[in-house]
Amino acid sequence: MTNTLYCFGESGNAYKAALALELADIPWQPRHVDFFKGETRTAEFRAINPMGEVPVLDADGLILTQSGVIQDWVMETSGKLCGDNTRDTPRDVLRDVLRWTIFDNQKISGMAGPLRFMMNFIPEEKRNADVIGFLAGRLRASLAVLEGELAQRDWLVGGALSCADISCAGYLFYPEPFTFERATYPAIDAWLTRISETPGWKHPYDLMQPAFAS
Amino acid sequence: MTNTLYCFGESGNAYKAALALELADIPWQPRHVDFFKGETRTAEFRAINPMGEVPVLDADGLILTQSGVIQDWVMETSGKLCGDNTRDTPRDVLRDVLRWTIFDNQKISGMAGPLRFMMNFIPEEKRNADVIGFLAGRLRASLAVLEGELAQRDWLVGGALSCADISCAGYLFYPEPFTFERATYPAIDAWLTRISETPGWKHPYDLMQPAFAS
Repeated sequence: MTNTLYCFGESGNAYKAALALELADIPWQPRHVDFFKGETRTAEFRAINPMGEVPVLDADGLILTQSGVIQDWVMETSGKLCGDNTRDTPRDVLRDVLRWTIFDNQKISGMAGPLRFMMNFIPEEKRNADVIGFLAGRLRASLAVLEGELAQRDWLVGGALSCADISCAGYLFYPEPFTFERATYPAIDAWLTRISETPGWKHPYDLMQPAFAS
Repeated sequence: MTNTLYCFGESGNAYKAALALELADIPWQPRHVDFFKGETRTAEFRAINPMGEVPVLDADGLILTQSGVIQDWVMETSGKLCGDNTRDTPRDVLRDVLRWTIFDNQKISGMAGPLRFMMNFIPEEKRNADVIGFLAGRLRASLAVLEGELAQRDWLVGGALSCADISCAGYLFYPEPFTFERATYPAIDAWLTRISETPGWKHPYDLMQPAFAS
């Protein structure tokens, strides 16, 4: 079986897929996408993913896009990262993983992604303080929800690391400034440490080649 | 069985859940949430949903939040709106529904929601042209992807209306201005007509009580 992940280091969405593959012990190889030179806008790339995004997983010819979909496939294929580490995870538990995955996509990654992009990866004259303030405010509200939940338990779903944690934490491991400071959120901080101490965990830039030297 | 949906008319996310319940012929009743008076921020509401959002479905005591999770439950409970109208929908087809659901949550509803909110439901002096321009630009890019796909086929997944369509279309039925004009997107326009001609379809304000008289 050959699993190829179209990705680049700076993409938190790609990281969520890569880290799930890695921690589920599914063999995979990265295929670097030259995002900043416009590769995701080419006809060749759009033929693979009309949404024009990474990550894309080519699992022996099965094309999967959206990190949450790749994570769903990882959970089903491996039986791991489902919140309970069994192959018969109850549907209610899987739905709770999905609940956090969607919350992340809309309200954590969905805000942290464009915010970090604007603050770091575009020319300074194109950065807009009002937009940065708006995105930062929405991210802050979502992180407050996350902090409140993690103050009550170690993992978001069940008693073990799941794709819910990987999804919500993905962007929070990046070093570039995007208004998030671990010290502001003690429960999130401790949870990120728990995740990074999981055997096999890797930093995004050790798992996928960044476009920029860091 | 009593299914109660915590919702209010203006919420496109609640509409996505309500319309899925309705079109799957699952009996349900709305429970109006007074969002604009702060009900989702109360301790009582946060005890039901710590994310502080509608929709919430109380399905005979099973609490489900996030429209995509409620739609997942609707598909499993009814066997409908899965893209193929069978009870044995292949996992690949269900993953394709999920792919569009997540794309919608991050890139269509995730932009249209705050954009429409800012353009209509907050005092004029708090509206920010730069933020509106930013959100509108991102929404435009996502709608271009949707238009490209719908130019090639009638429904997003399989050969029938599914929760993928309901998710991506949810916000696009609202009358308040949020920079989206049906005439700009002929394939989306025709698809919205197809959806609204589906037996049982209802406009958001006919399905859920709006907070503002329209």
